[in-house]
Amino acid sequence: MTHRATVDFLLYDWLQAESLCQRERHAEHSRETFTAVLDLSEKIATEQFAPLNRLTDTHEPEFDGVTVTLPKETPIALAAFNEAGLMAASKDESVGGMRLPTVVEIASMSFFYKASVALAAYPMLTRGNANTILAHGTPKQVEVFAKGGFEGRTFGTMCLSEPQAGSSLSDIATRAVPDVAGDGSGVDWTQDPLGQRYRLRGNKMWISGGEHEMGENIVHLVLAKIPGPDGKPVAGVKGISLFIVPRKLVKADGTITQQRNDVALAGLNHKCGYRGTVNTLLNFGEGKFPVNGEAGAVGYLIGKQGEGLKCMFTLMNEARTSVGLGATMLGYAGYEASLEYARQRPQGRHLLGGGSGGKDHSAPQIPIIEHTDVKRMLMMQKAIAEGGLALGLLCAQLLDDEQTGTGEQAEKAGLLLELLTPIAKSWPSEWAQEANSLAIQVLGGYGYTRDFPVEQYWRDNRLNMIHEGTHGIQGLDLLGRKVVMNGGKALSVLAERMGETIRNAEKAGHTDAGLAAHANALAQALQKVGATTKSAWSTGVPEEALANATPYLQAFGHTVLAWVWLELALAAKAAQAAGEWDKSPLGRGFLQGKLATADYFFAYELPKIDAWLGVVARRDMTCAQAQADWF
Amino acid sequence: MTHRATVDFLLYDWLQAESLCQRERHAEHSRETFTAVLDLSEKIATEQFAPLNRLTDTHEPEFDGVTVTLPKETPIALAAFNEAGLMAASKDESVGGMRLPTVVEIASMSFFYKASVALAAYPMLTRGNANTILAHGTPKQVEVFAKGGFEGRTFGTMCLSEPQAGSSLSDIATRAVPDVAGDGSGVDWTQDPLGQRYRLRGNKMWISGGEHEMGENIVHLVLAKIPGPDGKPVAGVKGISLFIVPRKLVKADGTITQQRNDVALAGLNHKCGYRGTVNTLLNFGEGKFPVNGEAGAVGYLIGKQGEGLKCMFTLMNEARTSVGLGATMLGYAGYEASLEYARQRPQGRHLLGGGSGGKDHSAPQIPIIEHTDVKRMLMMQKAIAEGGLALGLLCAQLLDDEQTGTGEQAEKAGLLLELLTPIAKSWPSEWAQEANSLAIQVLGGYGYTRDFPVEQYWRDNRLNMIHEGTHGIQGLDLLGRKVVMNGGKALSVLAERMGETIRNAEKAGHTDAGLAAHANALAQALQKVGATTKSAWSTGVPEEALANATPYLQAFGHTVLAWVWLELALAAKAAQAAGEWDKSPLGRGFLQGKLATADYFFAYELPKIDAWLGVVARRDMTCAQAQADWF
Repeated sequence: MTHRATVDFLLYDWLQAESLCQRERHAEHSRETFTAVLDLSEKIATEQFAPLNRLTDTHEPEFDGVTVTLPKETPIALAAFNEAGLMAASKDESVGGMRLPTVVEIASMSFFYKASVALAAYPMLTRGNANTILAHGTPKQVEVFAKGGFEGRTFGTMCLSEPQAGSSLSDIATRAVPDVAGDGSGVDWTQDPLGQRYRLRGNKMWISGGEHEMGENIVHLVLAKIPGPDGKPVAGVKGISLFIVPRKLVKADGTITQQRNDVALAGLNHKCGYRGTVNTLLNFGEGKFPVNGEAGAVGYLIGKQGEGLKCMFTLMNEARTSVGLGATMLGYAGYEASLEYARQRPQGRHLLGGGSGGKDHSAPQIPIIEHTDVKRMLMMQKAIAEGGLALGLLCAQLLDDEQTGTGEQAEKAGLLLELLTPIAKSWPSEWAQEANSLAIQVLGGYGYTRDFPVEQYWRDNRLNMIHEGTHGIQGLDLLGRKVVMNGGKALSVLAERMGETIRNAEKAGHTDAGLAAHANALAQALQKVGATTKSAWSTGVPEEALANATPYLQAFGHTVLAWVWLELALAAKAAQAAGEWDKSPLGRGFLQGKLATADYFFAYELPKIDAWLGVVARRDMTCAQAQADWF
Repeated sequence: MTHRATVDFLLYDWLQAESLCQRERHAEHSRETFTAVLDLSEKIATEQFAPLNRLTDTHEPEFDGVTVTLPKETPIALAAFNEAGLMAASKDESVGGMRLPTVVEIASMSFFYKASVALAAYPMLTRGNANTILAHGTPKQVEVFAKGGFEGRTFGTMCLSEPQAGSSLSDIATRAVPDVAGDGSGVDWTQDPLGQRYRLRGNKMWISGGEHEMGENIVHLVLAKIPGPDGKPVAGVKGISLFIVPRKLVKADGTITQQRNDVALAGLNHKCGYRGTVNTLLNFGEGKFPVNGEAGAVGYLIGKQGEGLKCMFTLMNEARTSVGLGATMLGYAGYEASLEYARQRPQGRHLLGGGSGGKDHSAPQIPIIEHTDVKRMLMMQKAIAEGGLALGLLCAQLLDDEQTGTGEQAEKAGLLLELLTPIAKSWPSEWAQEANSLAIQVLGGYGYTRDFPVEQYWRDNRLNMIHEGTHGIQGLDLLGRKVVMNGGKALSVLAERMGETIRNAEKAGHTDAGLAAHANALAQALQKVGATTKSAWSTGVPEEALANATPYLQAFGHTVLAWVWLELALAAKAAQAAGEWDKSPLGRGFLQGKLATADYFFAYELPKIDAWLGVVARRDMTCAQAQADWF
């Protein structure tokens, strides 16, 4: 299988990741250290995570009213991840890190997502949680609450949704009040070395990793509203603040006590897939575990009051690209499984076998990978899996450039990452789901049984269009905010980058008519997306502009991926010319496959954008104007 | 919910099903008798089938090595279906029928598929099995083996696939030899009142309803090869014959004995969904249940030797349209569930609510059905569910016309049904799957849990692109056979029918610009499909013509559905003008919804065909030419 080789191709032939070692932050790194991390990651993922993937599906988390039980193998696998120092790989030594570029860290994660997305969700969430505290917390909060996460001693969650408020975070009902004793004694706990101390009361839904017995503690990051001077919470998202709420209370010196904070598990959610990640409804402050004799979960304000959502977006943006990569790697896993099956399963004959129109029954059957429609299904999976991985690494490298690049490069990288985040989240969620469906299809009836892994990938993947901002939310974010922010500057940056690619492909097109045609097709697509964006907003009425935000998201995503695939084709051409892969055991087919997949994308996928853009461009109100009683 | 009303709209406002009562066969029927059957069907489906749907998912069939155990409720529900006389509804009185038109029988089935597709599979298979015996068996075979099925006393299966041969039926290895005693005695059992008697040996995979304790017997219809004079089986599909193989041996007078035939359950398949239908691997003739002291399952030849596949296609074609309708009704079930949720779930606010861009948080939240993107997801589901149901009923009526229509009408109906069968099977299988995914999306996180029904619909539906001929097989059937057979006559019949619709819509377009635009769009689509068909075959090379048979299938399907929706729009317009539905409690919204859904289909769906047709028209060989080592 070519996942590892494709990672190398993407990192070195395409993204020139070695050049990051010239930056001071990564000066101690080299391609050799990257290779060591990637090799180790693949090994641990293959040996420790992958064998548990079905087990965690069939042995769901259980709750007996007191304790949540996970398969005993789960913490063992996670410990292997932590012991390799992967959790903080890109961080400073002060929190146990090794200053690896983010793009390499994310490449490392790709092996774990592919092996078991449900297991990988624990480090993904814990890392995002610790990163958020690192970005917005006080030094003390970092020391006490983030470091444990980076070292793999504690786990982290993000607590946003409530049973009555999912996409609409402005309507959360969880309240945080200053921790002053309610017994009339007036004892004031609000000033704490760990931060302004509050008591939280409310219910949080869909909390992954919300309750279990692994690690020393669970650090919840919780959105809640602080009442204003009139005793009422401030309306809207501006009233939301962010709090660190540990599962077990923590002393000022960081010692984790055995006293439970007032956070109680109300129940487990029983999902269609992704069952290896325990998912919970948590009751904060219902009094099951009183603190100082009172109900209310102890929480420490992180960041400024009223800026909770802004702080949480550090985690949310990271989670969104991670969800996208998780979706992609499920697609990759299905691609590999169906590829292996297609190579081995004999069935049918060539249409033209012996000039008999496939009816020469004395001829031996052929492996199904020889059938064109099976190749089509594999090619589409390859386009999605490898294209999604490329997009995920590109986003990671943009984060590197934003953080360690210079001046204009950093600014543009930041804008482009903001723009691409809804695509990085939504595109793989939608299309790797389709890839998993095709993986099932390649296996036929066998693919539909639980004896093969592909049906689980497909079930697991269905979550990804829902969590961390639904598909619909991503569309509104893209068309309602990202393409118009700063006067459309982010979109200009993308157009500039695409323009460079188009020019490079035109140059290469002098000797390769295919590349020239792709360059032309991408240029047209870019023009259409730009014109459609303008048409959508031409009346200035949000209801009209955004009436078809989801089809816009789909078209935008396919255009971005066409750009990515043209980039990859150029990288493959250059690598061919340099003879770089000639010595690879994969042979010339490896690079040829990249070129063919780019051809596939331009022939079969990119033309789909016209149908999506049409409704956006003419501000079609068919759906918007439909009345409830028409259904 | 409007399923029942939509059935009435389709039967009477669109298909003029009452006019079938003028045919001699249905002379004793009237709209009143149709209504009685449909009311009863909905009642039994709702009360007896629907409550078991989740139960049959969570309580899968079990096999202890001797007996297959199904939930005890399963036979009770099926008995209710049988007691209502629904199994033979369209058949003659001689086999317990009531001579109902097929279109009404299929409309009746829609309620059962929606309530529990896995339970409904038992009568679907049994009916198809009995119909096949009725069509190809001797009077004695009909009396002994079909009548029990029509009366609901026995169950039926279809045994085609083998572990090593799924889509490639020419490679089946099951053998049938004349039943002459192998002990040297020369006793000859071949001449039997029940038919030419053979012994079968081989393994059959994916057999739904293959083993259970329900009913008096299970009647297997089994494909097997009879050795030729040289002792070798004839190669290819021409060597295949069809056999009736009862689970328990049957005497010449039809008495079912308690002696097991040599058919043994090798194992159950554990599927992703559709778990209420027991699915099996059967070993025929392995000697577990010897007959007359010898291994070999006793089977009676049905139809002529070597024409097994032709006979089986009676069942297969019926099964294909049934699979399509089952897929559709899963889509319908998800549509209803998500519609109900969307009407009740409050979340967020109007974008323009109070001119605040959706940010007036003092305003109450609105039910999510008010959000445009939710409406889009409901509209797409409605287009698929109602459009698929319309297509299913159209196919049923074509069968009526083929069987009881006259002369040219009957001939054209037969051709059109042949042409539409791959669409009726594939289009709902692909798109109602997408509809179910949207149903999950409307429910958000809740939709992904097993506390709501939509994730099961989605899992159940995934089988439908696989069984009874995969998606790829349907594409080859359509482009490789159906559109070119008889010099393209079937395609001409379709074009003729579409042309009528287009002319009617143009007429109506004098007062309704929308209809005129739709007529124009359909005319263009039809022209493109025709031109593309020609381009695909212009080189006469099957490998080139069929290289993109699946995208062709998709485009053809969407074009057919656009035609169906234009027909429904015309029917809705006529009904509006006649004021027919004015007294309905559903109000004017009911017909308005049909018109809006047609608008949706033409705006959002039909434009998708260009991307699919493009690769077909230019005979794109990107996938065909990809080499195995490029993946």
